[in-house]
Order: sequence, then C-alpha cells, then structure tokens
Amino acid sequence: MDNHDLVALSERRQHQVDGVLTAFFRESHYRAKALGTPYATLWETLERNATGGKRFRPRMVMAAYEALGGEEPERAAYVGAAFELLHTALIVHDDVIDRDFMRRGGLNVSGSYRDIATTAGIPLPVAEHRGMSVAIIAGDLALFNAYRLIDRSGVEGALRTRLHDILDEAMFVSAAGELLDVDFALRQRPPSVDEVVEMERLKTAGYSFEGPLRAGAVLALASAEAEEALAGFGRNIGIAYQIVDDLLGVFGDERDTGKTTVGDLREGKSTVLFAHAVGTPEWAEVSDWFGSPELSVEQAQRIREVLEAAGSRRFAEALARDFANRAWESLTSEALPDAVREEFRPVVASVLGRVR
Amino acid sequence: MDNHDLVALSERRQHQVDGVLTAFFRESHYRAKALGTPYATLWETLERNATGGKRFRPRMVMAAYEALGGEEPERAAYVGAAFELLHTALIVHDDVIDRDFMRRGGLNVSGSYRDIATTAGIPLPVAEHRGMSVAIIAGDLALFNAYRLIDRSGVEGALRTRLHDILDEAMFVSAAGELLDVDFALRQRPPSVDEVVEMERLKTAGYSFEGPLRAGAVLALASAEAEEALAGFGRNIGIAYQIVDDLLGVFGDERDTGKTTVGDLREGKSTVLFAHAVGTPEWAEVSDWFGSPELSVEQAQRIREVLEAAGSRRFAEALARDFANRAWESLTSEALPDAVREEFRPVVASVLGRVR
Repeated sequence: MDNHDLVALSERRQHQVDGVLTAFFRESHYRAKALGTPYATLWETLERNATGGKRFRPRMVMAAYEALGGEEPERAAYVGAAFELLHTALIVHDDVIDRDFMRRGGLNVSGSYRDIATTAGIPLPVAEHRGMSVAIIAGDLALFNAYRLIDRSGVEGALRTRLHDILDEAMFVSAAGELLDVDFALRQRPPSVDEVVEMERLKTAGYSFEGPLRAGAVLALASAEAEEALAGFGRNIGIAYQIVDDLLGVFGDERDTGKTTVGDLREGKSTVLFAHAVGTPEWAEVSDWFGSPELSVEQAQRIREVLEAAGSRRFAEALARDFANRAWESLTSEALPDAVREEFRPVVASVLGRVR
Repeated sequence: MDNHDLVALSERRQHQVDGVLTAFFRESHYRAKALGTPYATLWETLERNATGGKRFRPRMVMAAYEALGGEEPERAAYVGAAFELLHTALIVHDDVIDRDFMRRGGLNVSGSYRDIATTAGIPLPVAEHRGMSVAIIAGDLALFNAYRLIDRSGVEGALRTRLHDILDEAMFVSAAGELLDVDFALRQRPPSVDEVVEMERLKTAGYSFEGPLRAGAVLALASAEAEEALAGFGRNIGIAYQIVDDLLGVFGDERDTGKTTVGDLREGKSTVLFAHAVGTPEWAEVSDWFGSPELSVEQAQRIREVLEAAGSRRFAEALARDFANRAWESLTSEALPDAVREEFRPVVASVLGRVR
C-alpha cells in the first residue's frame, strides 16, 4: 500500500464517519428547534466543537475493523462516531474543569457563550460562569448520545452488549484519570513520573486508543488473542503519543502543532517532563515561574533550557520511544494478520519520528 | 385499596428499585477500587447522593406499569432506576451550575469535595472549584450509565429502542429547560409567567413525570391511547407539582419540607410567584432585596407579605390547581383502566391538598 492509497483510504473513512455525525447533528438540531432558537444554537455550537478535530478515534476503530477483515465499514463508522461523541463530551467538560475558553485555536463552547454574554454587557466573572454552565449542558448532551450511535449501527445481541461494555470501560477509565489529574493540581507533593504515566493512560490513552481498537476488533469478530494484542498496542502507543504531545506542548513548532508552546508551562500542567525535572537540582531556578499565568516568553525559554540541562527532555523522549517499541512488539503477535501491521506501522513511525 | 396497602405496595417497589441501584453501585465500586482508592471514594459519594431521595421517578414508572397490567415489576424497577440515575446526574450538574454545595440538608458532591479540600488547607475559591470539578465527573458517570440500566432489564428489540427513545427525549428536553433557566438568570427583563411554566415543564416535569409514566406504559405494552393519556397526565401534574414546590419554597413549613424558606428568595429563583409579582405595583418595595444573598429573615418575611398583597400567592395556587385539574381530566380517558385512576388519584389529591 503506497502513501497515496493510505491517504485515499483515510479520506473515505473520514467521509463515512462525518456522514454519521452530520446526520446525528442534523436530526438533533431539528428536534431542538422545536424547543426554541437558543437550544438550536446550542446544538450548532456543539456540532462545531465536535467537527474540528482529526477524527482520530473513529479512524482507529475503522482501521482495526478493516485490517482484521471487517467488510461493512459503515457499521464501524457508527461505532467510531460514538467514540468521537464521547471524546467531544470529555474535552468540553475537561475545558470547564481547566477553565479553558479556547480549543484548537478557536473558542470552545464555554468561550463562545462567555463572549456572547460579555458582548451583552454582562461582567466577565458572570459571563465566564455562564459559558461554563452552557458547556456542562452541551457536554451532557454529547455524552448521553454516544451509546445511541452504536445502536444505530444495527448491531444486536451479544455483539452490541460487548461494544457497549467497551465504550463503558473507556469512559469509566477516563473519569478515573480526570479525577487523578484534578488531585495532582491540588496536593503539595508533585506527582512522580509513574503517577503521570498512569494518569495519562487512564484519562486519554484508554478511550483514544485501546477502546477504539478493541471495538474495531470485536466488531470484526476477531479472535480473543487478536483483540488483546491490538488492545496492548493501543495501551502502549497511547501513552507514547501522550508523552510526545506533552513534549510538543513545550518544545514543538507552533506552526506545525497549531498550539502555543507556553500554555502548558503557564498552566503548570502535570507532565512526564515536569515530573522528571522537579527532582533535579537544576529545577530550583525556575520552579517559581512554572504554573504562573504571567510567565513571559523569555522565562518560558529559560524553563526549556533547564528541561534540556536537567535531562528531562531526553528522559521523556526515551520513555516515549520505549512505549512505542512496546506497542510495536504487541503488533508482532502471530494472532494479528500482516494487514494490521501495515495499517498501524505509520502510527508507530510517526511517534518515533517525532522523538528522534 | 386502603392506605395501608398503598404504603406497603410502595415499599415493595422502593425495595425493588433499591436492589437494582445497590447492585449497580456495588459493581461500579468494585471496578473503581482497581483504579485507586480516590476513585472508589468518588463512587461512594455518588451513591450517597443517588440514594437520599424519595425514588419518585422509579415509583412513577412502576405505578404506571403495574396499573396497566404489567406483571414483571422487576423489569420496571430497572427502567425506574435508569430514570433515577438520570435524575442524579441532572441534579449534581444543576448544583454545579447554581454553585450550590448543599442538597436535602446535607453536602452534595461539590460540597463534600470542597470541604475535603478546605480541611487540607486549600483556599476556599480553589476548594470550591475542585468540588465542582469532581461533581462534573460524578454527574458524567451517573449520566453515562442510565441507558445501561434499561439494557439490564432484559428488554430487547423494538421495545428496548422505544424505552431508550423515551429516556433520550426526557434528557433532551431537560437540557433545553436548563438552558432556558441559565438564560433567565442573565437577561435584563424578568421572565413572564408563561416562560417560567415552559422552563419548569422542560427542565423538570418532562423527565420526572411524563417520561417515567410513558416508559411504564410502553413497558406494559399499553395502547397508544393509554400511553398518550398517561403522558398528558404527567405533563400537567408535573407542572402543578413544580409550582407547588416553588410555593412551598417560600411559604412552606420548614419542618414539613425539610428545606429553608429563604433559599429561593436569596437566590432570586425564577418562579411563577416572582414572574407574577414583578408586574405589580407592590413589588417595587422589595425588588432590590429579591436575589440578595444577604437577605435577612425579616426582609424575607416582608417579601412574603408583598407576595400575598400583590395576589401572587393566590395566582400561583390557582395556576397549580388548574394544571392539577387538567391532569385529572387526562386520567378520565376511556383508554385508561380504573386501576390507573386509583393509583394516581392520591398524587392529584396531594397537589390539590397543598394549595387549598
């Protein structure tokens, strides 16, 4: 399969998933209009927030499904769309928890409604609370509809129950990770590297990689061995991906990633980088700046230099490589056909390529 | 059926619903423990918040089901428990939106976690945000599991889809009502009586009365006419109940209702009472006090006197009576057996008894 095929295939999958989500939002919008214009507008805002991403989770479901011989990709598109809706709900609520009003360079739900309120002359703290209130409602709506998209795929009986179980576990685990993250932000002692890895595994990797891959395998009626091998791949590549994401959040090129490289430092985000650095003597110089909302561009640059000098950048890169290699090892399982390795080799390569 | 039977029957139903919920929470707690003690504690807190109420919605489901001839009340208990879990999710998130830290005289999820944080020496605003963050997570968990309780009832195929549709509609409509309520709090012009009634119908009456009654009827395989008659009863009695609730929140006896009669006045809650009063000349005297968190007990008493003098209390009582009478009219439908009227006459009587 050459690169051109890979892209073409991916576009076809994206198109199928978009079809499912577009139909869902069209129908919801129609229902909402009957209950008033403001409610219809909320659904439009939610749809905008659900469609800006890369459809990463649906693509995982569909890639696993098709590589394992599944022949009805439209079914996989419904299951993928369910994970996408879960993802939308979780990030909308995560932004409320983090008091973020932006996402992917634009306004998120909280931000849109905050700005409507400030434009109407409402004072900022009240407007912010209003934005967050509407975002809680919007996230609830996305969350409540995820299972229903699986049902729309037409799967029945034991298979349907298994897919629901997988979606349930994905959300259950993510909530545990979100709770850990909230706890990190409050306690005196900074989290250890292991604790950060565990938090990232729970909060993001589970529902973004392991869950979608497992769902794709189950829908393709793959063997239990194949499902477990793919799930093992998902667990490890998910952590690797998250560590790389944290590295790019500090050392990345803003033109490539589309996100600022001071945000995580100003937020004092609990990452592997920070968990490693905090135990080194070099860190003392910048520890007061880390997590300061007023952090200057020069101070951020100095933190980057300290993270290099303390070996934290190298450490995080090595850890990401280690998890990516473990992920690849899972893929070499005899239970998996070559098509699976072909499908996911580029994912491993992309992670490794970014930390070399 | 004498009073003794009514109570005994109700206890049996409550017992069946509690069995479903207890098993669900036991299992979730067991799964959560594997992900760490803090997560298990969150599930305990959620369970406490889910079990303090009167199981009102499950009793509606079961009463409708049994009065319409349903013979497997255990099934109805699962469907009722699904509505109870939806209710838990909605009030936990509603409390975040209203920045309430108490519920039914005790700490809610936000309050419990706020207090843990302040006890650990964390400043109040940070502790409050932490409490609200955990409450968002807890509400999400309750919300995500509602459909699954319907599945556990063992219903399959078209019947299950119908029950899911009813639960979906209940949540969809409640979100629209919550959005209206958030909008009321922010705009300049106070809401009209009709707008308040519409908000209460959407936010609470739908998922508390119409949805559960419809679900009970559908599960009992009742005719479409019977289902619609019962739904019409639910819509009207739900609004009547809500207006009475608002009346009791200002004029009630705290020993009876277990809730303070200054809370709604300090909050400036949008009720029919207020929507009526605001258009009368008497209101000017107290309008600055209404909605003030520092409202004194004497000022609250003066507002009550003004609400009487302006005729707002009488107006709200008449409106509640009117909706209760319409509810009773729905029940007289020929499509409904006498058992249904016997079952729900006490509900109508209780509403009418409180406004006479």
